[in-house]
Amino acid sequence: MTARTPAPFTADDYRARMERAAREAAGAGLAGLLVAPGPDLVWLTGYEPAVTERLTLLVLVPGRDPELIVPALEAPDAARAAGAPALALRDWTDGKDPYAIAAALLAPDGRFGISDNAWAMHLLGLSHALPGSAYASLTEVLPMLRAVKDAAELERLTAAGAAADATFEAIREVRFSGRREAEVAADLARLLREHGHTTVDFTIVASGPNGANPHHEAGDRVIDRGDMVVLDFGGLLGGYGSDTSRTVHVGEPTDEERRVHDVVRAAQEAGFRAVRPGAACQDVDRAARAVVTDAGYGAYFIHRTGHGIGVTTHEPPYMIEGEERPLVPGMCFSVEPGVYLPGRFGVRIEDIVTVTEDGGRRLNTTTREMVMVD
Amino acid sequence: MTARTPAPFTADDYRARMERAAREAAGAGLAGLLVAPGPDLVWLTGYEPAVTERLTLLVLVPGRDPELIVPALEAPDAARAAGAPALALRDWTDGKDPYAIAAALLAPDGRFGISDNAWAMHLLGLSHALPGSAYASLTEVLPMLRAVKDAAELERLTAAGAAADATFEAIREVRFSGRREAEVAADLARLLREHGHTTVDFTIVASGPNGANPHHEAGDRVIDRGDMVVLDFGGLLGGYGSDTSRTVHVGEPTDEERRVHDVVRAAQEAGFRAVRPGAACQDVDRAARAVVTDAGYGAYFIHRTGHGIGVTTHEPPYMIEGEERPLVPGMCFSVEPGVYLPGRFGVRIEDIVTVTEDGGRRLNTTTREMVMVD
Repeated sequence: MTARTPAPFTADDYRARMERAAREAAGAGLAGLLVAPGPDLVWLTGYEPAVTERLTLLVLVPGRDPELIVPALEAPDAARAAGAPALALRDWTDGKDPYAIAAALLAPDGRFGISDNAWAMHLLGLSHALPGSAYASLTEVLPMLRAVKDAAELERLTAAGAAADATFEAIREVRFSGRREAEVAADLARLLREHGHTTVDFTIVASGPNGANPHHEAGDRVIDRGDMVVLDFGGLLGGYGSDTSRTVHVGEPTDEERRVHDVVRAAQEAGFRAVRPGAACQDVDRAARAVVTDAGYGAYFIHRTGHGIGVTTHEPPYMIEGEERPLVPGMCFSVEPGVYLPGRFGVRIEDIVTVTEDGGRRLNTTTREMVMVD
Repeated sequence: MTARTPAPFTADDYRARMERAAREAAGAGLAGLLVAPGPDLVWLTGYEPAVTERLTLLVLVPGRDPELIVPALEAPDAARAAGAPALALRDWTDGKDPYAIAAALLAPDGRFGISDNAWAMHLLGLSHALPGSAYASLTEVLPMLRAVKDAAELERLTAAGAAADATFEAIREVRFSGRREAEVAADLARLLREHGHTTVDFTIVASGPNGANPHHEAGDRVIDRGDMVVLDFGGLLGGYGSDTSRTVHVGEPTDEERRVHDVVRAAQEAGFRAVRPGAACQDVDRAARAVVTDAGYGAYFIHRTGHGIGVTTHEPPYMIEGEERPLVPGMCFSVEPGVYLPGRFGVRIEDIVTVTEDGGRRLNTTTREMVMVD
C-alpha cells in the first residue's frame, strides 16, 4: 500500500514563500535573510544540495528578487530545482571568494537572519566580508516562519501520519520476543517505505532498560517476554515528516508497568487537550507535565513535551517551558510525554497534533492503550 | 568478501588526539577549541549524536581536561562513546541555557577555534553569552589538525580504498547498456557494502551528457551504446572514507573520447607525480591543470583537483590554486582532474593518494586506462 502523492510544489508556490519570508524579515527589522542548505532552503526553493562545504546561500532582501549563490559545479542541479524559476542564480568557481559575492548583495551595516544550521565557517566568512553587519538565527528572529502550515502542507503531513499509523498497525503483528531490537527496527524501516516514505529518519526500538534512555535507537539486545518496548519512528513522505511513538508490551505487563503507561497516556491526553489557538506553547508542556508530576514521576520526564514538524522532523514550535509564543491554527507538532525509569523501562506516547480553529486534531490515530505483542 | 576490520580506537587514542588538538590550539594563539557534532567530534571522541539541534559541544582548553557539553537525554549515548573515559560530561536539560554552561568554561575575552560545521545558531548563542570572545573556523586556524594520518588511520584508508577498488572490478563486469543510471548506482552501493563499507556516501553514474555535470548523481537516463560513463563512488569503512572515479565506455569510443580520456589520465598522472613532502597543495592542482590546459581543455576543468579524506570524504587539505600549505607525509587526498564538455560527455579519473617520505602512494590501484563495458 502506498499513500497517494500530492502534486509537487511549483515555482509559484516557492515564489510565494520567498516573498512572505522577505516580508516577514522586513517586519522584524531585518535587512534580509541568509538561507543555508537544509530545511529552510528546501522549504523556500525545493533545492537540496548533496554536498555543503562550499557556500550555497539564498539571499532574500526585501524589495529585491531572490538570489541563490551556488558553487558553479552545483549550478546545473540548482537550476533544476522546482523553485529555480523564481530566483536568480549567482555561481562561483573554486578559488574565488564566495563571501565577497554575498557581501556585494548585502547592506554593509545590515542585520540579517541566518539559518540555524548554516555552517559557522560561512557565518564567520560573511562577518569578515561585512564587518559592520550583524546576525541572528532564524529561530531567534523568525521562529515561526515555517511553523504555520498551509492546506497543501497539512495534506502532506496528514498523509505521512497515516502512513506511520499503518506502519504501527503492521508492526504490532510481528514477533518481538526472541528478536534483536535492530531486527524490529529494520521491519519498521521497511514498513515505512512500503507505506510511501522516501526517507526513514529514525526507528527507535528501545526494549526493557533501553527504554529508559529516550534517545536509544535500536541495538543488539534480544527482546524478551515481560519487556516494555518503546517504538518511535518516522521519516519523510512527499517531503513532509512523520513521527509517532507507542509503547508496547511483550506478554502481560506488571501493575507498575500498567500504572506508568496510564500516567503517560493521561499526560499525552492532557497535552493534547491544552492545544488551542492562543494558548502558549509552554501550556502544552505544563499540562502534560502536571499529570506526570502529580503521579510522582516528574523527575523521570526528562525532555520537552514536543517539537514542530514539517519539511524536517524537528523544528519550531517547541512545546517547552519558557516558550510563550501562542499556538496558531495550522501549526503542527508532537505531543510526546514520557517517563524513564533508569535501569528498568521507559514509556513514551507521541502523536503529531495540528492546531485547528477551536482546538487540536491528531494526525496519528492508532490506539494509545497499551498494545500487547508477541 | 569483507575487508578485515582494524581494532577500534581506544579512549587512549582519543585522549592523545584531544591533547594534541589542545596543544595545537595553544600554539595557534587560541584560548581553546569548540568542537561540534560531525567529523571533528567523531575524530576527537568517537561520539556521533543522531540529532544536533540541541547544543552538543566539546570544549578543549589547553591545560584543562576535555569537557563535553551534552543534552541530558543524549548523555547516556555520549557516555558510551569510545572516547568518553577521556573527558568529563556536562549535561543540560531542556529549558536551561546551554550557552551559559559553555561560557562558564571559557575565557570571556578568548579567541576560539570552532568546527566549520557548527551551527550558526550555536555560534551566535556563544557570542552573545561571551560578548568579548572571538571565533575562527577550524579550517582557518587549524586546517591541518586532522590532515596528517597516523599508521592506524592510514591502515583504515587503505582498507577503504581496496574495497572501493574491488567494487570497481566488479562493476566493470555488470551490464550498462539498456539500464538506467540509478540501477548501476544501486549495484555500486550494494557492492560497496558487500566489500565492507558501513556507509555509502555517493554513487555517481553520469552517462553521456550527464557526465558533463561533475555533481550529477544518478538518474533515470538509460545508458546506451556509445556512452562515456563517469563512475565516482565511496563511503566509510571502519570509520574512514573511500572515494574513487573511473570513466568507462559502453562499446567503442570515438577518437575524441579517447583523446579527452588520455588528457585526463595524463593530468591525473601529473598531479600524482607532483605529490611529495614540501610541495604546496596548489602545486598538485597546477601540475594536473597544466596538462589539461596545454591540451586545450582548460576551460572545461571546472573544479579543484582534490580534497582531503579521513573520517569524512571531503576535508582539508584541498588541492587548489591559492593553497600554499606544504604537503606532509601521512596526508591523504584525492587527485581527480576532469574535463566536462557541456551537452556531450565528461571524463574524471580519481585516486586517493597519500604523501610518503619521498613522494606519493596511490590507495586506489585499478587501471586508469579506459575500460570498455557492455
